[in-house]
Amino acid sequence: MPMQATTDTQQRILDSARELIFARSYADVGVADICEHAGVKKGSFYHFYPSKQALTLAVLDAQFIDIKEKLIDEAFSEDLPPLERLERFAELAYQFQKRINLETGHVLGCLFGNLANELSTQDEPISERIQQTFRKLQMLLSGVLQTAQQRGELAVEVDVVATAQAMLAYFEGVLLLAKNQNDPEVIRQLLPAMAQMRIKRS
Amino acid sequence: MPMQATTDTQQRILDSARELIFARSYADVGVADICEHAGVKKGSFYHFYPSKQALTLAVLDAQFIDIKEKLIDEAFSEDLPPLERLERFAELAYQFQKRINLETGHVLGCLFGNLANELSTQDEPISERIQQTFRKLQMLLSGVLQTAQQRGELAVEVDVVATAQAMLAYFEGVLLLAKNQNDPEVIRQLLPAMAQMRIKRS
Repeated sequence: MPMQATTDTQQRILDSARELIFARSYADVGVADICEHAGVKKGSFYHFYPSKQALTLAVLDAQFIDIKEKLIDEAFSEDLPPLERLERFAELAYQFQKRINLETGHVLGCLFGNLANELSTQDEPISERIQQTFRKLQMLLSGVLQTAQQRGELAVEVDVVATAQAMLAYFEGVLLLAKNQNDPEVIRQLLPAMAQMRIKRS
Repeated sequence: MPMQATTDTQQRILDSARELIFARSYADVGVADICEHAGVKKGSFYHFYPSKQALTLAVLDAQFIDIKEKLIDEAFSEDLPPLERLERFAELAYQFQKRINLETGHVLGCLFGNLANELSTQDEPISERIQQTFRKLQMLLSGVLQTAQQRGELAVEVDVVATAQAMLAYFEGVLLLAKNQNDPEVIRQLLPAMAQMRIKRS
């Protein structure tokens, strides 16, 4: 098999898994569904991934790269004061979900949050990978808050680590409600308040 | 079959389903698992519930009654000023999850949020029942905020409906992170900030 075909096949499996699991759930999507969607045979699947779990870990990594490029890097670029970057993040998150809603007919929420709620009690490696991803997101948020504090735009008594965690929690909860109501406007209405959240040092 | 036995059997099926689905997920728990846990035959299951979906709707209703009694009615009783009731709610929610963690070894999060993330794109009746439950929770929260406003303890420009929704979103997100980290202390650290959330009328 030429190298290019191998790479294409693996990518198709990865993309299919991401699309199906994001649209439905982990348990509802089987290896057979992924193979059918990707147009590959089971043997080919197992050539690249030992299990659905292993593939899902790769899906989570791919999703983080995507979110980081499309949402975070754009939102957090340094052309705006730090606290305004958080408002831009809220707006971009809304547009991201609205686009998915137009394409699929559904608000799909956050892939990490979806699988965190579905699998945290059931699948240690997936739960652990989501924890790592959440920690990365928190670090990015606390970095923005720290910059704001250094520039004197955020009170020194604000606990930037706890506040970043609170912002991530709120983000996950807003996406959950928007998914449940299948309405991206919930994000537009609620998420901007994320930029105003503050937890003080105790 | 005497009436008492019938009632007991139905209750055992309901309790088993609630325990298993809360601890794992909707897709991971089959009718056979529920029957085995409840010690009943499949025929008995289908005598009371036409499907796992129908039983799950009953589980959601039972969970709401439980949450309302154990958490909300106690938190929101009128012996405290309204905004302090929200702080008590945060503390009781922490204790509720900590108790579950001690009993099961896991933080199980919110049953409504878990199933909202797992099933909102897949199961219309369950998604709709969760939406109804969330609306009831929001009404209870906005009632507390309205009382605070009437007593002059909350600024008149606060949008009590949007703020109640934001509080519910934050609650769901905090429980999601606590479940993912399997650590009830996340709730104790983050959830009290719920009482400080404000969204202004636009």
